[in-house]
Amino acid sequence: MERAVLEDLAAASRILVDQGVFDAAGHVSMRHPDNPDRFLMSRSLAPALVTADDIMEFSLDCEPFDPKGRNPFIERFLHGGVYKKRADVMAIAHGHSAAVIPFGLVATPMRATYHNAAFLAAGVPVFDIRERFGATDIVISSAEKGAALADALGDKQSAVFRAIFTEVSARVQLQAAALGGPMAALDEDEGRKADVINLATVGRSWELWKSRVT
Amino acid sequence: MERAVLEDLAAASRILVDQGVFDAAGHVSMRHPDNPDRFLMSRSLAPALVTADDIMEFSLDCEPFDPKGRNPFIERFLHGGVYKKRADVMAIAHGHSAAVIPFGLVATPMRATYHNAAFLAAGVPVFDIRERFGATDIVISSAEKGAALADALGDKQSAVFRAIFTEVSARVQLQAAALGGPMAALDEDEGRKADVINLATVGRSWELWKSRVT
Amino acid sequence: MERAVLEDLAAASRILVDQGVFDAAGHVSMRHPDNPDRFLMSRSLAPALVTADDIMEFSLDCEPFDPKGRNPFIERFLHGGVYKKRADVMAIAHGHSAAVIPFGLVATPMRATYHNAAFLAAGVPVFDIRERFGATDIVISSAEKGAALADALGDKQSAVFRAIFTEVSARVQLQAAALGGPMAALDEDEGRKADVINLATVGRSWELWKSRVT
Amino acid sequence: MERAVLEDLAAASRILVDQGVFDAAGHVSMRHPDNPDRFLMSRSLAPALVTADDIMEFSLDCEPFDPKGRNPFIERFLHGGVYKKRADVMAIAHGHSAAVIPFGLVATPMRATYHNAAFLAAGVPVFDIRERFGATDIVISSAEKGAALADALGDKQSAVFRAIFTEVSARVQLQAAALGGPMAALDEDEGRKADVINLATVGRSWELWKSRVT
Repeated sequence: MERAVLEDLAAASRILVDQGVFDAAGHVSMRHPDNPDRFLMSRSLAPALVTADDIMEFSLDCEPFDPKGRNPFIERFLHGGVYKKRADVMAIAHGHSAAVIPFGLVATPMRATYHNAAFLAAGVPVFDIRERFGATDIVISSAEKGAALADALGDKQSAVFRAIFTEVSARVQLQAAALGGPMAALDEDEGRKADVINLATVGRSWELWKSRVT
Repeated sequence: MERAVLEDLAAASRILVDQGVFDAAGHVSMRHPDNPDRFLMSRSLAPALVTADDIMEFSLDCEPFDPKGRNPFIERFLHGGVYKKRADVMAIAHGHSAAVIPFGLVATPMRATYHNAAFLAAGVPVFDIRERFGATDIVISSAEKGAALADALGDKQSAVFRAIFTEVSARVQLQAAALGGPMAALDEDEGRKADVINLATVGRSWELWKSRVT
Repeated sequence: MERAVLEDLAAASRILVDQGVFDAAGHVSMRHPDNPDRFLMSRSLAPALVTADDIMEFSLDCEPFDPKGRNPFIERFLHGGVYKKRADVMAIAHGHSAAVIPFGLVATPMRATYHNAAFLAAGVPVFDIRERFGATDIVISSAEKGAALADALGDKQSAVFRAIFTEVSARVQLQAAALGGPMAALDEDEGRKADVINLATVGRSWELWKSRVT
Repeated sequence: MERAVLEDLAAASRILVDQGVFDAAGHVSMRHPDNPDRFLMSRSLAPALVTADDIMEFSLDCEPFDPKGRNPFIERFLHGGVYKKRADVMAIAHGHSAAVIPFGLVATPMRATYHNAAFLAAGVPVFDIRERFGATDIVISSAEKGAALADALGDKQSAVFRAIFTEVSARVQLQAAALGGPMAALDEDEGRKADVINLATVGRSWELWKSRVT
């Protein structure tokens, strides 16, 4: 595998910290470019510190290949569970970005309030681990829990782009909600059309963001 | 044309990133100082990275002169459409600043809540592309859409000044709204008078902001 | 006069920018330590850039002594007006800090919600220039307007300390208001007692803040 | 005592400033590792400036041993009072983090809205000095007041971890409250289970945070 792929995946982790999506925790992974039955993900490490040498390779059952003494994240089961069930998913960013979490706690659905978050217009599912597994430590720590979680994103750069603008759109919606009254947002049709344009600009944003963390 | 003009236009782009008005997107343009039938605008590039060599020259129909292989922004149609219809407009800043967008989503009008945003007291029009063009990708990507958009600002430094304090005033209004009850703000008369004073101080702020990005 | 006095006054200006109280505008002044009929204030300049050489000396009628070609702030009339009417005032910080302004727009009074802002418990007057002077440019630009404004603060370091924690307390109150229901805060008696303790710690904060801007 | 212990306690103080929990005030202390009848705490100093040489040793009655001319914090009575009454408490972080204070002013209880703040699900007591001591300067400045305050945290690194994520969880709850309607959060059972996992990751966060302040 090309070294540049590992370096980009590590940069994705650092970019998501730099852009305020990840804090001391957060994981970004990608399906192996040459072998769809494997995925790539950092060893257990603060996401701001991840470099290419920290990237490990896993089976879809989350078994590491050639760990070289590196300790994997328990959260890899979230990633493996999605890659196994959803062949279309090529990359995953899993974080706890501050403006998004409120939408998991209340009944208000997330909406597409920012042009670069147009993809949110298709709807944002909320996975509540309590409904299926009762009172747990809320970590996706097993293959069974990973399989129960079925959200996913596009390719690696798009996963970063979408994680960032999901946070931005959430902040806008929180402020608009404070003003009260009916609120406009992109509808599904607009969201689909605008997302095509947005994806065409991912490279431009990626280069900028990457320059800040390298 | 003087090199300093291009450098100032490029600095305007970087200033608006530094001051939190632009993110990975955002475009600032100006009417050509010697030829009112042309305007100047960066090639397609993250606004934080724009330098004088990235500035291209366009006709009011958005045709580039001497592109030298540089790729223009599709959003240039927003700029050309305004320069063509509004001879009084000398510069445009087009961004998606976070505290302003909520006022495009709800019925609450923007008000002048901050002295340097006194010009907002004259009213802030909201352009909803859906009313005229139905469900689109929400980009001003043609001459027809550009012509349908008719908001504009003063000279280049003022465009930067106003973009910054529109964001600041929006933040103040969002906070005041959270307190509830009737809200004061500058009325149209006060807004007009205070704006005269504000424009006289643009140079002082410009020098400060420019020093941060050069 | 000692050079250190001028350097501290200039540092106060830069500290208030660094701590988010001043933006591209904002003025801090002090009564002359040896001559109570004079005050010291920067020439017209962004507050982040003020150094000892920018400090000018004024009569209480706002006439400059020995201007050396330096251009004074029109806002000096706010400062002179207060020093003239209030012999107890030794220093003034005049800014537009973002979380404080909403309390000038709505009926909700500011309260002391943060221990270091205990002095707010004595009440915060709101001066509305419209009531006395009608629709103006809202600048305190004459001796008459300066005389109509009668708010003031203690010594120089305390003015900085109080400007900073007024902003902090305002942010806390805005957040508490969003939660709804009755809100506690220091009462006048607690405010007076806690302020004695706070003033005793100003030096410790001042040294820290100054180290960030020198 | 090992020098590394003093250096870690000093780093804890600087970390809490860097992470936005402490401002110009805030104190972190720990029980003496070899003598449970003593505790360690910085001399009176802005928490951003604390180094190992600033750490003083106190009896549980807050008498300093070998002060070497260093001036102790008056707030040491808060720390001594807790160590004396609660043998299980090994470290204390006392600050005024901005998003937490509103929950001391209104009736809304703090809840565990963020995975790393799972420990909040057990409930957050509010100590109102006014109920017991009337109108005071609100400082815990005596043994009697210290004894009246009985909140506490786990070991030193955990105290830092918990102070940080209490602030983060408070911010999330403030935003969720603004959306209105019923709000979910971890229940006590989930909180206990998730906290076990969280404590296992404290070291990873600690190394990251420490690297930012050393």
